[in-house]
Amino acid sequence: MAARPEGADRADSPAARLAGLRAALGAGGLDGFVLPRAGENPGEATPACAERLAWLTGFDGSAGLAVVLADRAAVFADGRYTLQVRAQVDPALYEARHIGEEPPTAWIVERLGAGGRLGYDPWLHTVDEAERLRAAAEAAGGSLVPVEPNPVDALWTGRPPPPRAPAVPHGIEYAGRDSADKRAEIAEILAANGLDAAVLSAPESIAWLLNIRGGDVPRTPVALAYAILDRTGAVDLFIDDRKLDGAARAHLGNAVTVRPPDALGPAIDELARAGRATRIDPGATPDWIARRIEAAGGAPARGPDPSALPRARKNDVELAGARAAHLRDGAAFARFLHRFAEEAPKGTLDEIGAAERLRAFRAEQPLFRDLSFDTISAAGPHGAIVHYRVTPESNRPIRPGDLYLVDSGAQYLDGTTDITRTIAVGDPGAEARDRFTRVLKAHIAIATARFPEGTAGDRLDPLARAPLWRAGLDFDHGTGHGVGSYLGVHEGPQGISPRARGTALEPGMVVSNEPGFYKEGAWGIRLENLVAVTAARLMAGGDRDTMAFETLTLAPFDRSMVDPGLLEREELRWLNGYHARVRDRLSPLVPPETAAWLARATAEIG
Amino acid sequence: MAARPEGADRADSPAARLAGLRAALGAGGLDGFVLPRAGENPGEATPACAERLAWLTGFDGSAGLAVVLADRAAVFADGRYTLQVRAQVDPALYEARHIGEEPPTAWIVERLGAGGRLGYDPWLHTVDEAERLRAAAEAAGGSLVPVEPNPVDALWTGRPPPPRAPAVPHGIEYAGRDSADKRAEIAEILAANGLDAAVLSAPESIAWLLNIRGGDVPRTPVALAYAILDRTGAVDLFIDDRKLDGAARAHLGNAVTVRPPDALGPAIDELARAGRATRIDPGATPDWIARRIEAAGGAPARGPDPSALPRARKNDVELAGARAAHLRDGAAFARFLHRFAEEAPKGTLDEIGAAERLRAFRAEQPLFRDLSFDTISAAGPHGAIVHYRVTPESNRPIRPGDLYLVDSGAQYLDGTTDITRTIAVGDPGAEARDRFTRVLKAHIAIATARFPEGTAGDRLDPLARAPLWRAGLDFDHGTGHGVGSYLGVHEGPQGISPRARGTALEPGMVVSNEPGFYKEGAWGIRLENLVAVTAARLMAGGDRDTMAFETLTLAPFDRSMVDPGLLEREELRWLNGYHARVRDRLSPLVPPETAAWLARATAEIG
Repeated sequence: MAARPEGADRADSPAARLAGLRAALGAGGLDGFVLPRAGENPGEATPACAERLAWLTGFDGSAGLAVVLADRAAVFADGRYTLQVRAQVDPALYEARHIGEEPPTAWIVERLGAGGRLGYDPWLHTVDEAERLRAAAEAAGGSLVPVEPNPVDALWTGRPPPPRAPAVPHGIEYAGRDSADKRAEIAEILAANGLDAAVLSAPESIAWLLNIRGGDVPRTPVALAYAILDRTGAVDLFIDDRKLDGAARAHLGNAVTVRPPDALGPAIDELARAGRATRIDPGATPDWIARRIEAAGGAPARGPDPSALPRARKNDVELAGARAAHLRDGAAFARFLHRFAEEAPKGTLDEIGAAERLRAFRAEQPLFRDLSFDTISAAGPHGAIVHYRVTPESNRPIRPGDLYLVDSGAQYLDGTTDITRTIAVGDPGAEARDRFTRVLKAHIAIATARFPEGTAGDRLDPLARAPLWRAGLDFDHGTGHGVGSYLGVHEGPQGISPRARGTALEPGMVVSNEPGFYKEGAWGIRLENLVAVTAARLMAGGDRDTMAFETLTLAPFDRSMVDPGLLEREELRWLNGYHARVRDRLSPLVPPETAAWLARATAEIG
Repeated sequence: MAARPEGADRADSPAARLAGLRAALGAGGLDGFVLPRAGENPGEATPACAERLAWLTGFDGSAGLAVVLADRAAVFADGRYTLQVRAQVDPALYEARHIGEEPPTAWIVERLGAGGRLGYDPWLHTVDEAERLRAAAEAAGGSLVPVEPNPVDALWTGRPPPPRAPAVPHGIEYAGRDSADKRAEIAEILAANGLDAAVLSAPESIAWLLNIRGGDVPRTPVALAYAILDRTGAVDLFIDDRKLDGAARAHLGNAVTVRPPDALGPAIDELARAGRATRIDPGATPDWIARRIEAAGGAPARGPDPSALPRARKNDVELAGARAAHLRDGAAFARFLHRFAEEAPKGTLDEIGAAERLRAFRAEQPLFRDLSFDTISAAGPHGAIVHYRVTPESNRPIRPGDLYLVDSGAQYLDGTTDITRTIAVGDPGAEARDRFTRVLKAHIAIATARFPEGTAGDRLDPLARAPLWRAGLDFDHGTGHGVGSYLGVHEGPQGISPRARGTALEPGMVVSNEPGFYKEGAWGIRLENLVAVTAARLMAGGDRDTMAFETLTLAPFDRSMVDPGLLEREELRWLNGYHARVRDRLSPLVPPETAAWLARATAEIG
């Protein structure tokens, strides 16, 4: 491959990009700028054209923030990205900061300086985020200044255009309810709260409400758009209409008016001037929208996205789809595990090769559309990096004695999957086996939990940690996140973590159950199934309406890593019962030699 | 006994008292009045002269509130008092409301009416409570109006005078630290927070800080007073000086200035006018004090009582005292259990008799001063009333087939105890045995819990509930409350309950471990020990600084109620180990026949 001309390299170096941004800020009378890893729609689904943080700093993690001042700049990311920031960002240009321990707001308060004007792009921050930044800028004696367009865009030559993938109908055979029915439910919620309209900014909400799916961002099948839902149930959908063909328009129907994206501002003005009470979710709406309402003389009615809870409560068709998708996904995963068991001990596999094999098995399954996130294929010490992503540079051979952690999932038309298994290649030692078994106890504690109606997921999170706490261990991530239905693999508001406080777990909600334990520099262990909340049968003599979890994921846990002496009777009973179910359900769907392997992999323990 | 003259009865009936209050309100231009069960000092330690709510309404529970309007009135109390309110309050005069489900603020918003003036006594509500009442009154279009003196006081003939019990030094052999040392620590906390002074309103804080104890209220050995602590460590103590003899004054020393109670207002004025930053705890300071600061042109510096956490972290002397007190208390309790085991099956005991026998055994112990609360001595269905208090009217014989619940404790000079046991008389049936065993599992889950440094008690509360949740069961109170050192038997900020959020459990803190299960109309089960937080030895391979609980209470659980088939190995191991410890520690302290009984009561199970 020919070397690129040196001049071009220098002109487009991270240093040159940072200098260009500083020059633009100076010309605009600004003393600084905040740039988050975020697109114009809130949430994790971010198109390539919105990867401004990666373009500027080199850091391409899924969450982070840069603050650029005239004489210094910093990149903030959470603990899972500490190593990645160190590898990708030039320390001569940016300080690397832990976003939890040294939050950007504190950094701004200390360094902006009196009179300092800190720019931000109001499309890229939610209302809540902008408020925190504003408070920090003002605490420093300065101010927060909205900047449009984003100054990065003029500097970024070769910035990809906004995506324009087709938005396609999501059939009733998968969605389970037609859009008119959903719109009527949300309209009722608006009316019950004395609201006239709601602005929906989360692409998952729009996809769910209108039963459409798209391809604008990797891994999450959404079409980027905004919507205003009226209390009559009518919707204005602001979307590039080249994404919609005749069938899609017909599917949307008469109650949905398709309008160009730049009609959103005037539509908001109209609502505000008419004094209509308009709900925005301050945690999931760009600050731009709230500012526009206020500029037109209105006051946004703050509150949760009214579609968030109805979307989280999967209906019976979605649950049946989830079960079917997990069955197929389980068959693909069993074939991968079998292949892995045969190849890994020979030392011929590496992280990339393993991830590719797994993808290939999944891609053979009916209704497969995409992975649900980039596969975490992590051998040995890479397993301790919670959000490890293999690259050609980091790719590591899988060797005898390694623990191998694979966290992966797929998007099927009938459901979204997410599974993590940790597999021993040969004998990784007594300590790893002890820790694996304790993580399994944590997993079983959630799988078998029952809890009264009204219990939020923050109350269950300690149940997973208790078996680890007893051994002086813990893990630094939540126990579980919400999952969508052929939608986002991270999709709230439900979860099993301290952050899930206030959201009761209701029948139909799907969450992950993924405790872990990580030994830095050595290995990581995580065991993840998806579970659906069900109304449990009332126990004899029980006096509370009780919820339980139905485990959706079907895949064996590595028997060789289980120390049965650490398991209580009930835990062994669950494990053996689960393995029997995995064997019974998957065996008919896999080749005979895989079925034979599966019989051994799920044999009774204890 | 001669009948009382009818006229007197009528003139002093609850109806007459309510009418009298309404007349006084009308004369004062008020449309209503809020009367809580509270004294002029915050907290549960309430003297007889402050029992205005009981005088007015008849309801004498430890927590509650009346709202009196011109045409209607209501008494609000929590779930433990539902039955008691029904029994004590005339429904023709007061609606009975569940304070959690129909909070008084909502009732006020609905019923006060526009322009309505709602009176309140600013001494009887904390700053936070007054703010909630004010918001409610204003939401109704009315206002909240401070009223002094309390209009009840003029109506209440025969109101007891304020208590004047001696305040006595609490020796260093029990307190473990001298007051000067404590005052220096709190002064440092003030300085570190940029504060000049703190007003202390909680009698427990003053007792702890100055190493004094008193007898102004039943069951809690405090002297009612207020204090202002300066950042130099000097204290102004506002107290009726007839409570202090020469020895007490000498003990307080030169750095403590004794001033009359009515000097508090002018002292606050002086602080405020001098612009001194004065800490008040809005959750534990009468609104009167904040208003006084504001009236004098100051702004109270809101934050937690700076002595609350240092007080909660018991020092080594206090912990040694707690162990010694629990040993003696355990010996007394074992003698009671033995006596109970002999007498109850004969059907000759009743609730009052049992409580008296228990008190007598305790009173024989060295350093005994008082009970720590009124003994809950509850047979059969009374056990389901969480805060049952036996009266001559409610007194119930204890019969074969009954479950008997006894929740009791004592104040010893070296420590405060609180223990609950549930005892079968004969065979109360399989369901009760099942439930007892599940409550025991809940108890063991806390007793054996380990948790990382920094964990707050709200995170442990679900560990106790999980074994009950699994059977569709739960209990409607916290799992545990903080306990003082020869001080309040309910003393925060630490606890094991959703309310304990934000207060990490630290070594030396004492909390109760008291899960329960209640079958209304049938029986109640509660199993309570006190535990102290300890720094656990680091487990082999553990990587977190880990905390654990040391169980202080020494008393057998009723073996006949344990279904070993429901217990896991580790649970059985804990139970047998605990019972062996109880036997070993208590046998030398009890008569031989009790020791023999104890040997049987603690014999190995499983």
